[in-house]
Amino acid sequence: MLFFTQCFGAVLDLIHLRFQHYKAKRVFSAAGQLVCVVNPTHSLKYAPTRCAAAQTSTEQGILSPCHHHEAVHDPQLVPCTCPLFSCPWEGHLEVVVSHLRQTHHINILQGAEIVFLATDMHLPAPTDWIIMHSCLGHQFLLVLRKQEKYEGHPQFFATMMLIGTPTQADNFTYRLELNRNQRRLKWEATPRSVLECVDSVISDGDCLVLNTSLAQLFSDNGSLAIGIAITTSKVHNAEAEM
Amino acid sequence: MLFFTQCFGAVLDLIHLRFQHYKAKRVFSAAGQLVCVVNPTHSLKYAPTRCAAAQTSTEQGILSPCHHHEAVHDPQLVPCTCPLFSCPWEGHLEVVVSHLRQTHHINILQGAEIVFLATDMHLPAPTDWIIMHSCLGHQFLLVLRKQEKYEGHPQFFATMMLIGTPTQADNFTYRLELNRNQRRLKWEATPRSVLECVDSVISDGDCLVLNTSLAQLFSDNGSLAIGIAITTSKVHNAEAEM
Repeated sequence: MLFFTQCFGAVLDLIHLRFQHYKAKRVFSAAGQLVCVVNPTHSLKYAPTRCAAAQTSTEQGILSPCHHHEAVHDPQLVPCTCPLFSCPWEGHLEVVVSHLRQTHHINILQGAEIVFLATDMHLPAPTDWIIMHSCLGHQFLLVLRKQEKYEGHPQFFATMMLIGTPTQADNFTYRLELNRNQRRLKWEATPRSVLECVDSVISDGDCLVLNTSLAQLFSDNGSLAIGIAITTSKVHNAEAEM
Repeated sequence: MLFFTQCFGAVLDLIHLRFQHYKAKRVFSAAGQLVCVVNPTHSLKYAPTRCAAAQTSTEQGILSPCHHHEAVHDPQLVPCTCPLFSCPWEGHLEVVVSHLRQTHHINILQGAEIVFLATDMHLPAPTDWIIMHSCLGHQFLLVLRKQEKYEGHPQFFATMMLIGTPTQADNFTYRLELNRNQRRLKWEATPRSVLECVDSVISDGDCLVLNTSLAQLFSDNGSLAIGIAITTSKVHNAEAEM
């Protein structure tokens, strides 16, 4: 009986996923746009036990991943850039992508323009929705985070970071677009480098910020579709000059 | 001596205004865009004494301007739509613009695309920046409001309302654009009718919402330049079909 209940549940999940995928495709109707359903992950980095552990390690002189400049002895090595877990890994920038895929199971998508469909927006903060995006010969990390900067008032923060150096990041422009019910919200900026740490970008508020009410206006049945496009800044400037 | 001090102050103000105007023009470099410097007004509507007075009048059966459906006896008459003051005026929709200009001294600007330059963004909430915008044969009310929805955390809310009926409002699309330091934020929506009350649009969060940190990122020396464009929805739809 339990087996049948579980099977039925799995089939329902599949139908639900297929339906959400179809809805996102309808919203972002441009042909060839890849829709990626991204499930939430409860961020363990901010859980009380992990925070306490991080604090203890900081007190003992072992710094958290964000303080990589002090923590890394070999300047060629960078810490794990996964925003979800406090991970002791460090390695060369070139192998960060394979570490994120293999150890933290973060998906990677190809394509100049994709649609990021974040499910279960109602889940309590802190929650993250994360994918990697491969485009124009580089890999980017897209992070949507639900966080309570002010207690009792969760907000959504979305940003895109280049898995590369700050100098490389300056060559790109990313665009995040929400579009629903005759409303459109667009955020365009230069991506930051993952070396700058996603936590500080979000605490600075230098990203797309949504109140709960705005997030609800753009959500459809608990899912938020974000259109993503990346261009090289040089092309962008040339267009502006035309 | 006092006279000279005052004169000198006025000259300094003029230079400062001219400088801000120049800066806004430089940011929104498109030729022919009209830059309008908008000074803040401390909203008296939310001052404790007025709120108490409004509450008393509601208890006595005299409704505030937002509840115009109940308050107006002649359905042809609408209440004053000024977001700043609780004003007992009521009249026909056609004379709302002249009432706002003459009684509340709200400026009106012509042009399809204008730049709204809000000064003194640091002033404490509640503060409003308001102008009227005449375009495509209609008048619109642009409201930027600094308000503390959550105590101690002021936010900025910007919206555009048609001085007309909700059916007329459905024919237009307005765009608000912030652009500074390689960051761009765009909000596009159908304007609401002034009959729907600006306070409810802001409390619903159905407008451009800025945290203090985002507002600071887009501000230049305490002033925020917002590019405004209005189009008819029919033109907009025709473009989408092409």
